[in-house]
Amino acid sequence: MRLATVCFETRERVVAALPDDRLVDLHLAAELAGEDAAFFVDMMALIYGGDEALAVARVLVDTADDRVILLQDEVEFRPPVMPVQYRDCLVFEEHLFNCLRAFGQAEPQLPPVWYDQPIYYKGNRLSFIGHGQDVIWPNYAEHLDIELELAIVVGKKGVNIRPEEAEDYIFGYTILNDVSARDAQMKEMPGQLGPAKGKDFDTGNILGPYILTADEVAHPVALDMEARVNGERWGGGNSRQMQHDFGRILEHISASETLYPGEVIGSGTVGTGCGLETGKRLAPGDRFELEIEKIGVLANRIVKP
Amino acid sequence: MRLATVCFETRERVVAALPDDRLVDLHLAAELAGEDAAFFVDMMALIYGGDEALAVARVLVDTADDRVILLQDEVEFRPPVMPVQYRDCLVFEEHLFNCLRAFGQAEPQLPPVWYDQPIYYKGNRLSFIGHGQDVIWPNYAEHLDIELELAIVVGKKGVNIRPEEAEDYIFGYTILNDVSARDAQMKEMPGQLGPAKGKDFDTGNILGPYILTADEVAHPVALDMEARVNGERWGGGNSRQMQHDFGRILEHISASETLYPGEVIGSGTVGTGCGLETGKRLAPGDRFELEIEKIGVLANRIVKP
Repeated sequence: MRLATVCFETRERVVAALPDDRLVDLHLAAELAGEDAAFFVDMMALIYGGDEALAVARVLVDTADDRVILLQDEVEFRPPVMPVQYRDCLVFEEHLFNCLRAFGQAEPQLPPVWYDQPIYYKGNRLSFIGHGQDVIWPNYAEHLDIELELAIVVGKKGVNIRPEEAEDYIFGYTILNDVSARDAQMKEMPGQLGPAKGKDFDTGNILGPYILTADEVAHPVALDMEARVNGERWGGGNSRQMQHDFGRILEHISASETLYPGEVIGSGTVGTGCGLETGKRLAPGDRFELEIEKIGVLANRIVKP
Repeated sequence: MRLATVCFETRERVVAALPDDRLVDLHLAAELAGEDAAFFVDMMALIYGGDEALAVARVLVDTADDRVILLQDEVEFRPPVMPVQYRDCLVFEEHLFNCLRAFGQAEPQLPPVWYDQPIYYKGNRLSFIGHGQDVIWPNYAEHLDIELELAIVVGKKGVNIRPEEAEDYIFGYTILNDVSARDAQMKEMPGQLGPAKGKDFDTGNILGPYILTADEVAHPVALDMEARVNGERWGGGNSRQMQHDFGRILEHISASETLYPGEVIGSGTVGTGCGLETGKRLAPGDRFELEIEKIGVLANRIVKP
């Protein structure tokens, strides 16, 4: 299933997309079918509801009639889930090589630790927007960029997770646009604590439009990814190019550290998935589309107040 | 006031400490006094209640009788607030100089950006414990350390906060022990995204015992700080030594980025406030006490399973 959180008639609703992209209001559908509607109060309720909630949702999707259908153009998308916590990794080698070349290194080399373990930082979990919402240009930056990433939503609580059981902890996959202020990022990186204002500003993290439930794909995932700006292809790749897959990522993060349902973990930018790698940058009014196979297209615009 | 969250008879309660360290159960006191007890359901309710809730709390403290008193030895402390989000800065020059000397730099120099703006990262908001709770040695680390820090709790929502109005956004001050796995930290830092497993593991962040409300101290704060392990003084300093005070920190973080009530921001380690600076490290069973003037003593033990 492809699940989303949308706003319709001033209320947020959890929906599942049909193959033709019409949306099923799961809470309303459950009420009408006499099923447990508490599973569908919001996305966190569905995640906590686990396999039982997903089984009910599948039945509701298969039996949906006009009374529970919403159309794309009558709803506004929100982030499918507001992350309980948000981490972002850096596991695509080509992205790093391209960035280092952009900074003038003719023959870039990555630190050995990058090959040993997933490198990640934690981002602002409260600055997320959804598909179709505008990114507001931050007042301290001149150089804005997109970043095309695959992200997972954690489905259940776990600690010391082994890679072979990781799949059980993934609720689903979604598209992440980690909009970045390159000038602020470059300024703060010598401080050695990782990105801060370079990544975190209101509307600077975008998630959606859908969470593709984990049962829909084989793990580790191999999904085509493409970024476009104003209709022009900027770059893309495939999630199989991740140096460390999400199993290894979950193993590393969860060592003596409990992960909770609703946490979001990004892959980092796929090779050529941002403008920095190829000498491009955003301008006010630009419209960008991040597409990942089977999940959909995450489309937004950036505006300068 | 000094406010805490404690567990008594299996239920968490918001308390205020009397000068003699006896604790006033604010929710119970409000009920008995016919005041609005909803302000004291938990610390977040009190923070959202703002000046009105604090005014009620002060009256309840002044009029407390035996029916609403809890004693220190009959409660267990929890983190005074579970951070809505958690950032940690690095604004004590002496701490950085000492760390760089420990890594073999005879004449350490800090990057210019460190003097221009507060450098910070975001930590795991879900791994906090309170005063008196045990730190569990993480299974992937050998070299454990404490870090003595002052932290603020954000009191109200704000964006683009000016330094001169910052005081209005600080609900109060508390003690932060950012327990660190130095070997994991050193391994991952060349990855350039800042600390991850070096800082974040279950029980690895400690907050408390009290939040000292902002009205009790002049801003910027100048509070003596001291760290002791097994009764021996490891180091300490004064919060006036911060290169960037919390006003500047709030200004920097809140640029185009909304801060919310209940967010926690640490100062970073005061000079000599950790063992790395002076060649010390923790051993299983060690007991540490972090003391900050007017706030109290945050005491914990580390155990190896």
